[in-house]
Amino acid sequence: MNGAESLVKTFLASGLDMCFANPGTSEMHFVAALDSHPEMRCVLCLFEGGATGAADGYYRMAREPAATLLHLAPGFGNGHANLHNAMKARSGIVNVVGDHAARHLRHDAPLKGDLDGVARSVSHWVGRADAPERVAHQGAEAVRAARARSGQVATLILPADSAWGAARRVSTAVEPGERHRPSVEEVEAAARHLSKPGAVLLINHDGLHGAGLEAAGKIAARTGCRLIAPFFSPRISSGAGTVRIERMPYPHTQMIAHLEGTTHIVCVGADRPVTFFAYPDSPSTPEPPGCPVLELAKPEDDVIWTLERMVEALGAGAAEPVRAEYSVPDAPSGALAPDSVAAAIVRTLPDGAIIVNEAITSGRAMPAMLGTAAPHDLLGNCGGAIGQCLPNAVGAGVACPDRRVVALTGDGSAMYTLQSLWTMARERLDVTVVVFANRGYQILRGELANLGVEDHGRNASRLFDIEDPTLDWGAIAKGHGLPALQATNAEALEEALRQANSMSGPVLVEAVM
Amino acid sequence: MNGAESLVKTFLASGLDMCFANPGTSEMHFVAALDSHPEMRCVLCLFEGGATGAADGYYRMAREPAATLLHLAPGFGNGHANLHNAMKARSGIVNVVGDHAARHLRHDAPLKGDLDGVARSVSHWVGRADAPERVAHQGAEAVRAARARSGQVATLILPADSAWGAARRVSTAVEPGERHRPSVEEVEAAARHLSKPGAVLLINHDGLHGAGLEAAGKIAARTGCRLIAPFFSPRISSGAGTVRIERMPYPHTQMIAHLEGTTHIVCVGADRPVTFFAYPDSPSTPEPPGCPVLELAKPEDDVIWTLERMVEALGAGAAEPVRAEYSVPDAPSGALAPDSVAAAIVRTLPDGAIIVNEAITSGRAMPAMLGTAAPHDLLGNCGGAIGQCLPNAVGAGVACPDRRVVALTGDGSAMYTLQSLWTMARERLDVTVVVFANRGYQILRGELANLGVEDHGRNASRLFDIEDPTLDWGAIAKGHGLPALQATNAEALEEALRQANSMSGPVLVEAVM
Repeated sequence: MNGAESLVKTFLASGLDMCFANPGTSEMHFVAALDSHPEMRCVLCLFEGGATGAADGYYRMAREPAATLLHLAPGFGNGHANLHNAMKARSGIVNVVGDHAARHLRHDAPLKGDLDGVARSVSHWVGRADAPERVAHQGAEAVRAARARSGQVATLILPADSAWGAARRVSTAVEPGERHRPSVEEVEAAARHLSKPGAVLLINHDGLHGAGLEAAGKIAARTGCRLIAPFFSPRISSGAGTVRIERMPYPHTQMIAHLEGTTHIVCVGADRPVTFFAYPDSPSTPEPPGCPVLELAKPEDDVIWTLERMVEALGAGAAEPVRAEYSVPDAPSGALAPDSVAAAIVRTLPDGAIIVNEAITSGRAMPAMLGTAAPHDLLGNCGGAIGQCLPNAVGAGVACPDRRVVALTGDGSAMYTLQSLWTMARERLDVTVVVFANRGYQILRGELANLGVEDHGRNASRLFDIEDPTLDWGAIAKGHGLPALQATNAEALEEALRQANSMSGPVLVEAVM
Repeated sequence: MNGAESLVKTFLASGLDMCFANPGTSEMHFVAALDSHPEMRCVLCLFEGGATGAADGYYRMAREPAATLLHLAPGFGNGHANLHNAMKARSGIVNVVGDHAARHLRHDAPLKGDLDGVARSVSHWVGRADAPERVAHQGAEAVRAARARSGQVATLILPADSAWGAARRVSTAVEPGERHRPSVEEVEAAARHLSKPGAVLLINHDGLHGAGLEAAGKIAARTGCRLIAPFFSPRISSGAGTVRIERMPYPHTQMIAHLEGTTHIVCVGADRPVTFFAYPDSPSTPEPPGCPVLELAKPEDDVIWTLERMVEALGAGAAEPVRAEYSVPDAPSGALAPDSVAAAIVRTLPDGAIIVNEAITSGRAMPAMLGTAAPHDLLGNCGGAIGQCLPNAVGAGVACPDRRVVALTGDGSAMYTLQSLWTMARERLDVTVVVFANRGYQILRGELANLGVEDHGRNASRLFDIEDPTLDWGAIAKGHGLPALQATNAEALEEALRQANSMSGPVLVEAVM
C-alpha cells in the first residue's frame, strides 16, 4: 500500500465516497488508487472551478463532504472562486491537491508555486501530508475538519512522494467536536426580545430547512416576530406547505426600507445584516440606527439546538407555523421580463425541485413568487462570486438523482464555468439549465447608472455588453452534448420549461430577454 | 477628479494604454474613468483567466505591460493560473483589483475574502491604494514594478472608497532600476568554459529573440558550444533565417539523454535545468552527475548585455551564427498523428506568424519541424498551468494586428479558458485556433502507464477520457461567434489550415486525432 492508497481507504472508512476531480500528473498515484477502489465515485470536471462548485452543491443537498482532486497551485487557483462561495455557504469539502515531491520543490520547476499561500487564502483548514505514513492521519483530519463547525473547506496537500511512498496505516475520521451553543439564559433573553413589537428573527444556514425552519416557524407563531431570511442563503426550503418566511431584498436601499421600524434583530445561523457593497452616501449596515443586533448563534454554531431550545423556552412546542399555500400567477404572455420569466418558472416547477439561482438581474422577481410555488429547495450564492450556478447544479444533481434541478443563470454568469454543462451530460443529470440572455452584464449597467453615469460611452459599452458577436446558446449547449430549446416570449418559455422538465438528462433553455 | 480617474490618467501618462477587463460592481468608478478616457483601449474578457492570460500574451509580443481589471478576491482567484504562467514567463502585468471600501471590510459581506493573501500568492509586487490621494502614486509604482527585472506581475488593490474619493495628483511611473549584470570576470570565465568540448549554453527569455539570440548565435559559432533552449520558453524566434538552436525535449528520460556527455552548462536568462515533475527513481536535475552548472545571468538579469559582453570577450563580433534554412516535410497523408499534424502546420505557416503552443501531446513533434519552417515567434507555457493558449493568443493578436496568430491546443487544454474564443471574435483578431481533439487527457494516460498501470479500470477511464459525450468543436466555435472547419485526415488538415490562415478574423480548425 502506498500513501495514495492509504488516503482513498481512509476516505472510504470515514464515509467519504464521492470525488469531483480534475487531475494532473502529480496526482497519478492518487488516480491509480481511485481506480483500484471503484466504490469511490469519481466525476470528471473539465475545469477546477467546476469541481469545487460541484462539491459545494453536493454538500448543500447531501450534508456530507465530497472530495475534490486538484492539480498543484494553479489548479487550486482555478477552484478558488467557488471555494470562496463554499466557505460563505459553510459547505464541507475536502480538497486533495497534489504537489511536487519534497526534493523537487528545491528547484524552480514550472508548476512550483505558492500552493500553501493560495490554499490558506480560501480554506478553513490546511494540512500537508509531508510523509507517506502521515497521509492517512492527515486525510482523516481533513474529513473531520470538513464536518466541523457546520461545514468547512479543508485542503489536504499531497506531495507526490507522500503519495507514492509506502504506508501501513489507514485512519478513520473522528466525529467533529460539539458546536458552540449559547447559554440557556442567552436563549431566554433573546426569546424575550423577539416577543416585543418590531422584533425580527433573522435566520440562515441550518435554520432555513428541515427541523431548524420548523422551529423558527413556531417561534414566529408564538412571539409574532417577523421571520426573515437573507437574500442569499446556502439552502432554503420554500414553497407550498413550508414555513412562510420573508426574504431580504438585494439592493441596499431596499434592505434599509425592509428593516424600517425594526426594534430588535436576533440572528440565529445568520451573520448580522450587511449590504452587498458599500456606496458613498449609504451605511454598510441596513438596520435602523441604534437598533440592537443580537448574534445569538453564528452560522457555525449549533443552530437547530438553539432554535429548538427557544421553542421550549417559549412553550411553543404546539404552536402552528404559518405555512405557505400554493399559488402561482396567471399564465404570462408577451415579452420576457423578470416578472413573466418568474411566472413561467414557478408555474412549471416540478414538485421537490432543487433550484440554483444565479440569474442576477433576470431572477430578481423569483424569490417573491417562489414562496407559494411547488415545494422546493433553493440554493443561493452566498459568496457573490459568479460562476457558481452550473457547478452547484452538477453537485446537487449527483446528490439527489430523484429530484429535478432547475439552474437559473444569466448569460454573463454562465460563461464563467460553462464546462459544467459537459459534466451534466456525461453524468446524465436531470438538470434544466435556464440561461437568461440579456446579452450583457445587466447588473453593471445598473450600477453605473447608480453613479449618475447615464449616457456612457464606448469603453463602458464594450465592457458591459456581451454582443458583437451574440453568444449562440443553442450551439454552446450542443457543443457540450446537451439539447437546447429557445424562447423569445413568455408563452414559449412556459412551454419550453414544461418540455425541458419532463426530459431525462440535462437540457438548456435559452430565454432571450 | 476622483481616485479612479487619477489612476487612469497615471497609467496613460506612464505609457500604459491597454486594459483586459472583467469588471464588477466594486470597480464601477474605475469603469466610469475608463469610459471618459477613450484613449485607453479596453478589451472585455468573459472570465478573469482570459484577462490575465491575454495580458501575458500581450507583454510577450509588445514588451509593454497591459492592465487587467479584476473583481475582488474571487475574481483575482479566477485569474490566478494564468498569472502563475505569466510570473514564470516574466511578463509584466498590472492587475487592478477592486476591493470593498475600508469601512465595509469590518463586516462579513459576501464578497469579502483574503484578497491580500491570494494576491501575494501569485504577484511579484502587491500594493494597496488605501486612500484616494495615494492611488496615483501606487498606480505609478505598480507600472514601475511591472517593468522591473525583465517583467513582473504587479497587483494594485483599489478599494472602492479610494476610487470614489477626491484626488488631486496624477503620477508618472519612473524607469525601473538597472537589472543585475554579472562582472566582466564572470562573463570571461563563462566564455572560457563554453570553449571546452561538451559545453552547453542554455538560454531562455531575452536570449531567445532579437539581439539576444543573435549574440548567442555568435557565441556558439565561435566556441563550438551547443546552444539549447528549454522545451518551454516565453518567446522564441525560430524558423528559416533565424539562429539555429536545439530544443530540450519534454520527457525527463529524454532530457537526461539529451544532456549526456555534457561537461559544462552555462545558463544565461535560463534557470538551471529541472525536470517538469519528479519521478520515484529518477533525479530532478537532468545534467550528468557532477556536471557544473553556472547560472551566469538569471531570467530577471540583463540577459542581452551579458550575451553581447560575452561576444566581445570572445572577439566574436564578426562571427556568423549558423542559421536555419527553409525546409518543410513532404505533404502528409492519411490519419492524423503528431508527425502529420506538425507537417501540415509547418507547411501552411504564414510568414511572421505567432504560434502559441499548448497541444500537450499532439504538439510534441512541432518544435523539431518548426526550426526550419517560415520564420515565426513561438510562445510556450512556462508555468505548466493549462488554459494559457487561447488567452495568450488574444493578447498576442491585440499586440500584433498585422501578424497571423496560430493557436495550437489540445481539447482538454482548450476547455479551461474557452471564453477567449468570444473575445477573439469580438476584437476580430486574425487567429487560427487548431484544436487537437484526441478526446481525453492523453498526457495523463501516458503518465499512468509510466507508473506501470497499463490496464486501468473505470475510474481512471472516467477521469482521462473526454468522451460520452464527445465535445462538438464546430458547435462550440459557432456558440462563441467563430466559423469552424474540421479535418479527419492529414490532407484535409493541410487544406483547412491553408483556408483558415487566409481568412480575416478568427477561425477554429478541429483536427480529429
